[in-house]
Amino acid sequence: MTPIVDRAVVIGTGSIGASLAVAARKAGAIGCVVGVGRGRANLIRALEAGLVDEVSQDPLAAVAAADLVVIATPVDTAVDLLSGLVAAAPARAVLTDVGSVKQPIVAAARACGISTRFVGGHPIAGGTATGAAAADPELFRGRTVVLTPTPDADPAACATVRAIWEATGAIVLEMTAARHDEILALTSHLPQFVAFALCASVARDGEIAPALFGSGFRDTTRLALSDHEMWVAIARLNRGALLRAMDGFSSLWSELRAAIAANDEAGLRRVLQEARACKERSSS
Amino acid sequence: MTPIVDRAVVIGTGSIGASLAVAARKAGAIGCVVGVGRGRANLIRALEAGLVDEVSQDPLAAVAAADLVVIATPVDTAVDLLSGLVAAAPARAVLTDVGSVKQPIVAAARACGISTRFVGGHPIAGGTATGAAAADPELFRGRTVVLTPTPDADPAACATVRAIWEATGAIVLEMTAARHDEILALTSHLPQFVAFALCASVARDGEIAPALFGSGFRDTTRLALSDHEMWVAIARLNRGALLRAMDGFSSLWSELRAAIAANDEAGLRRVLQEARACKERSSS
Repeated sequence: MTPIVDRAVVIGTGSIGASLAVAARKAGAIGCVVGVGRGRANLIRALEAGLVDEVSQDPLAAVAAADLVVIATPVDTAVDLLSGLVAAAPARAVLTDVGSVKQPIVAAARACGISTRFVGGHPIAGGTATGAAAADPELFRGRTVVLTPTPDADPAACATVRAIWEATGAIVLEMTAARHDEILALTSHLPQFVAFALCASVARDGEIAPALFGSGFRDTTRLALSDHEMWVAIARLNRGALLRAMDGFSSLWSELRAAIAANDEAGLRRVLQEARACKERSSS
Repeated sequence: MTPIVDRAVVIGTGSIGASLAVAARKAGAIGCVVGVGRGRANLIRALEAGLVDEVSQDPLAAVAAADLVVIATPVDTAVDLLSGLVAAAPARAVLTDVGSVKQPIVAAARACGISTRFVGGHPIAGGTATGAAAADPELFRGRTVVLTPTPDADPAACATVRAIWEATGAIVLEMTAARHDEILALTSHLPQFVAFALCASVARDGEIAPALFGSGFRDTTRLALSDHEMWVAIARLNRGALLRAMDGFSSLWSELRAAIAANDEAGLRRVLQEARACKERSSS
């Protein structure tokens, strides 16, 4: 395909940034991809593996001639970096990110006066593997990417970011940053904190031999090994929506406990039926 | 190997019963296995697939000449069936079960006056597949089977049940029924009700497109498709230990919510660290 942008700079060459770089590059959607990171070894690996065309450890120098800047750092770092990148990048550059909370970065873009050419993004993909070594050009195929342009966003900037993602095989949805954060609080952040709480709660009940944990525990708590600092940041940045989601869970949990305590099997079956309906819908 | 028992009758040819039958039969641990079930089609399938040597739809007639009776029905049915089976089986027969709650069936065995030759069992294995078609002779290899003999149990009866399980490749642990139920409330029943509650709670928050649920939600809620009637029965039969486990979770959940609401990142990190320690230990 004809490149959608000539020169894209990806800030952060972890699994998401490096996968986007290699997927867009393989699709011919980007003429030249520059990978920016702090770790020299990770950058060299990205270059040697053909994930990127150039590498740099200096984000401000790297974006000087960028047509597209993709901020693929942890979500709190992205907010901190934005104003510096805006000052260093050409006035024509389109900026986007991949963070899992959208309101803070969208607000930061507005504060920098670039909401017309900033298009927030969040690919709903990725596992627990980290670093450029986990890059996968097929990571986004068939997966959802949410874009959260503000009403004043330049349609050409939106079209550029959408086209890059579509070139990776992703399916793009648009919604407001507030709606994104509210939904992800339920579908991603709540399950994460439930998994943490389940593990911590079992831990406090004393030493139990590994042999007595079955596959149900293993799957339900898979997320408990997720990176802590990422989740501390998400809890801070999406606190309001996360607390509302947690309160909804608390209220359901109290209802379930009451039904079990009272041997109210009809009440228990109703909750289980609601659970099944949601599970079936979410997998459809 | 020389058969450990000549004639074993497995009541219930679902995935656990049929897997035990075929695994013990292939290992030569049982001379003749009789499969008992209500569904004729499932029994014929079990016979044709070579999982069992004989089939019957009449549990009382089937156990008349049994050396070993394995009750592999749902846990509440097992309690209901026990006294009839005891009356119909020879006085020499050893009885065991595979239920995931142990105190009620152990109490029922004591009430029938057979606690010397009843050895409760629980294989910590099995997925969501059901029926004889899901039988797998390797299902128990390397997995844990908990036996809960009472202090008055006949050592020969314990040795028989242990040897059958070891022939399938399982690793046998012994503990009291009360300790089993307390531990499984934490490692199995609590995760199950957490998964139900998580799904039901998200369902109440409105319609969310399937594309917005990621792999974290999928894994954390895998258990929400489990059979409802089995879990209604487990909640009833292990109510005390389950409610204690739920209360431990509630208290942890309140603590986590308070840390997030107060932006107490040190408190949040402490809980996350406890979670990681438990997760790592449970997987070791």
